[in-house]
Amino acid sequence: MNEVRVIPVQGIPEIKTDDNLAEITFEVLKKNKVTIEKNDIFVVTQKIVSKSEGMERDLSKFNLEELLQSESKKIIRKRGDLVIAKTNHGFICANAGIDKSNVRKNTALLLPEDPNKSANKFQKRFESLANVPIAVIISDTFGRAWRKGQVNFAIGSSGINPIDSYIGKFDSFDNELNATEIAVIDELASAAELVMKKTIDIPIAIIRGVDYENSKLTANELIRDDNEDFFL
Amino acid sequence: MNEVRVIPVQGIPEIKTDDNLAEITFEVLKKNKVTIEKNDIFVVTQKIVSKSEGMERDLSKFNLEELLQSESKKIIRKRGDLVIAKTNHGFICANAGIDKSNVRKNTALLLPEDPNKSANKFQKRFESLANVPIAVIISDTFGRAWRKGQVNFAIGSSGINPIDSYIGKFDSFDNELNATEIAVIDELASAAELVMKKTIDIPIAIIRGVDYENSKLTANELIRDDNEDFFL
Repeated sequence: MNEVRVIPVQGIPEIKTDDNLAEITFEVLKKNKVTIEKNDIFVVTQKIVSKSEGMERDLSKFNLEELLQSESKKIIRKRGDLVIAKTNHGFICANAGIDKSNVRKNTALLLPEDPNKSANKFQKRFESLANVPIAVIISDTFGRAWRKGQVNFAIGSSGINPIDSYIGKFDSFDNELNATEIAVIDELASAAELVMKKTIDIPIAIIRGVDYENSKLTANELIRDDNEDFFL
Repeated sequence: MNEVRVIPVQGIPEIKTDDNLAEITFEVLKKNKVTIEKNDIFVVTQKIVSKSEGMERDLSKFNLEELLQSESKKIIRKRGDLVIAKTNHGFICANAGIDKSNVRKNTALLLPEDPNKSANKFQKRFESLANVPIAVIISDTFGRAWRKGQVNFAIGSSGINPIDSYIGKFDSFDNELNATEIAVIDELASAAELVMKKTIDIPIAIIRGVDYENSKLTANELIRDDNEDFFL
């Protein structure tokens, strides 16, 4: 195993609707003289993806409660101001992922409509500019059942198998690993958060040195069906 | 922000009861000429901690069902062979953390009795050898509600504030961040897993370049009280 590097991308400007994130990122890296390597994994925070896709809503025109309903497939739990919802994509998180931090005042930011498509669009455009294969993960900060605090998870991905499966493999004692499937894109999203601080502006990290499988599978692989879940 | 490095520790031998993990790690790093830096974070997999603390159980002498009961405060869900239990520490995970992979055949491995104490012991001994301050996280691979696949989480820690709180801080749009508390030790555990593959023997990773707060708080901070949890 080699070491893994998590490299913050500095200098991404404030993102507006219709900005092309792949082009902006490529230009910023060129300007900063950051080299791009084959199989770099780009972790891009949902906030700038949503902004580039026009998902900001002016709360003087939109009602937050109605936005929450339209972004949710189902309300899972509710207590006072805290709502845990299943989003239209199938993610279970606070307020259906609607965010009021790192946006203009009196504005709410919705999740991208199809984060896997957003990831794929970034990947294809960036690859055409940089001429090396990369993978892309769109991340968001989620709370968890049973554990306090939030962590970054993957809500979209492109070009990387989201699961590192050990099923059918054997450990060094020759035991078959019959239940181990690592949600590697979630771990990559969490690793990226280590260089993305909430109060400063680092919305993208590059993770280098991870040996991953190229794949057409997306972050949807991590969504467990309701009927398989113990906690719905 | 600087980049963060996740460095695998190669060459840790098979661990036996009463082995001193801090001393063994220090010797291995010296032999491999890996430098140790101030504020390095050592992520140590639960498996070698449990082995060093004599937590292996011979299944010809112990009954797995009885072990599961004695390791659990409460059985949360059960379906066929799959049991989700709350461990005596308060973690909610499959089979109360009892593991049958990466151990000798017909053997089960229990979680350390007090992973924070294990982390603290490693930290103190290592610091006395290396003469620099470090932090230590004990990690284990857990499944999650709602999301498929497992990720590494922190079950013990020493010398690092487990939560990176933004409450009372402001983002670049001057919005107060009133709900953001990052479970940074869980993200560090996940980052470490990227260099700890299940079928090869890398039970320790060093994470370098993360700016963290020294603290007497432990991984217990991440355990949510039953009466605050929506999903119990």
